Amino acid sequence: MGLCDRLIAVDADEDVCNAVDTLGLADTATTNAVEGVQGSDLVILCIPVGSIGKVVASIAPFLMPKAILTDVSSVKQSVVNAVLPLLPESVSFVPAHPIAGTEHSGPESGFAELFKDRWCILTPSPDTNIRAVEAITKLWEAFDAKIEIMDPAHHDLVFGITSHLPHLIAYTIVGTATELEDDIQSEVIKFAASGFRGFTRIAASDPTMWRDVFLNNREAVLESLQRFSEDLSAMQKAIRRGDGDYLFNKFTETRKIRREIMKLGPEGYPNPQRMAIDSDPCDD
Amino acid sequence: MGLCDRLIAVDADEDVCNAVDTLGLADTATTNAVEGVQGSDLVILCIPVGSIGKVVASIAPFLMPKAILTDVSSVKQSVVNAVLPLLPESVSFVPAHPIAGTEHSGPESGFAELFKDRWCILTPSPDTNIRAVEAITKLWEAFDAKIEIMDPAHHDLVFGITSHLPHLIAYTIVGTATELEDDIQSEVIKFAASGFRGFTRIAASDPTMWRDVFLNNREAVLESLQRFSEDLSAMQKAIRRGDGDYLFNKFTETRKIRREIMKLGPEGYPNPQRMAIDSDPCDD
Repeated sequence: MGLCDRLIAVDADEDVCNAVDTLGLADTATTNAVEGVQGSDLVILCIPVGSIGKVVASIAPFLMPKAILTDVSSVKQSVVNAVLPLLPESVSFVPAHPIAGTEHSGPESGFAELFKDRWCILTPSPDTNIRAVEAITKLWEAFDAKIEIMDPAHHDLVFGITSHLPHLIAYTIVGTATELEDDIQSEVIKFAASGFRGFTRIAASDPTMWRDVFLNNREAVLESLQRFSEDLSAMQKAIRRGDGDYLFNKFTETRKIRREIMKLGPEGYPNPQRMAIDSDPCDD
Repeated sequence: MGLCDRLIAVDADEDVCNAVDTLGLADTATTNAVEGVQGSDLVILCIPVGSIGKVVASIAPFLMPKAILTDVSSVKQSVVNAVLPLLPESVSFVPAHPIAGTEHSGPESGFAELFKDRWCILTPSPDTNIRAVEAITKLWEAFDAKIEIMDPAHHDLVFGITSHLPHLIAYTIVGTATELEDDIQSEVIKFAASGFRGFTRIAASDPTMWRDVFLNNREAVLESLQRFSEDLSAMQKAIRRGDGDYLFNKFTETRKIRREIMKLGPEGYPNPQRMAIDSDPCDD
């Protein structure tokens, strides 16, 4: 797309660098982070949240004056807290969270349309250089993503509910199935299409990434988990007591949210190209 | 397909009968169940589990001698218990559960390929007329479904885990979201693609059908819910204590089940036509 003159990929794993070379994803691939950032006017951190502080500490002294630093982490407040104190004064940090991805990771798992019609949340501080925010906005818009600006703590609250809690629940229910007796487990796998399978896709996501998400958005996740557990206990009690009215009313209320999601369209915002689609065939 | 000479649709709702007529789904549509079953050699019950006993009691005296009765319910033991004592001796009951469907219901929601490459579970009693079981097998195979024979109680245990528990959890998490403050709720809807959206599809399923499933498979659902709740508490404790190793190990184990599901293919059994597909694009 001509967005930059030279693209350098950095990964701690030599095999990943070789895969990047083979796929032709960058001009150079190297395991040396310092080499990667020296002379770069934009540095994009694509690493687990728990490694951000350590990696930024190691590269900060080598960042170009006026360089822009950004990331793609699913948690924002702890990233801001870890990164800002480490940066030279002239370097701008524009935290970003593209709402896109699959359960697969590594250089082979990317594809050109991954960010098309997807949200990308930016959580800059009020005093971040406005030109740096504009540059990162343009970058994501070039990938056909749609930008939303948010406060980092608010981001963590919203995604604690809409992303982190669903992942935790999916990991848990699939974990519950791994502890079943072998014969029942093989049938659960065989008949997974009846509801279970969608959870297994989410629960196949990268373990390191998600461990770090939960450890770094602890309060928001625990708060939403508490609400969920209370609601689940109420469901359990209704089933135990045979309270059909309670179940019916709850199951009716939940349809409203689905209707609103379908009204917004698959991307979560009105998109004239896509609004004609009233169902979502890829939404298992 | 020439599977029968005459097809009669029965629904308590006049509007549904009119829709059946408009769509040309049957030769006749009527609100009178007795009229529908008189002279029919095959009767397929497609009603919520909680209504089965009442409906069968009202039609049983009018069933043809040697007629075959079957159903499509998601729960089997309570259906067997309700139906068998009501039937004339010459009528055979072959309980069935096709593992197919969407969150939509009503005559407009069907489509010709709905049962293609899907499981259909039959749970006949050991003394069911073998020719009746063969006839129902042939019926489902004509729709390209694949048959599995199971004991009804075992069916309820397996689907309590693989279908009923996932639905209950999805209904609960979407219910939790309906109780959020309005501003947060609108953002959860807007950014639903980050994990929440798949749950809303499941939680848009028919409330009457699912109320009856939970009330009629109470013990199996409560048992699997208990296991899930214990596992969720352990996750909660690990997050609270910052126990990253626990989370990492759990998140790694769950990938195994996904791999086995993907190995079996999207239908849950080896299908040479489909085995070439190694990922599942419609599995959100």
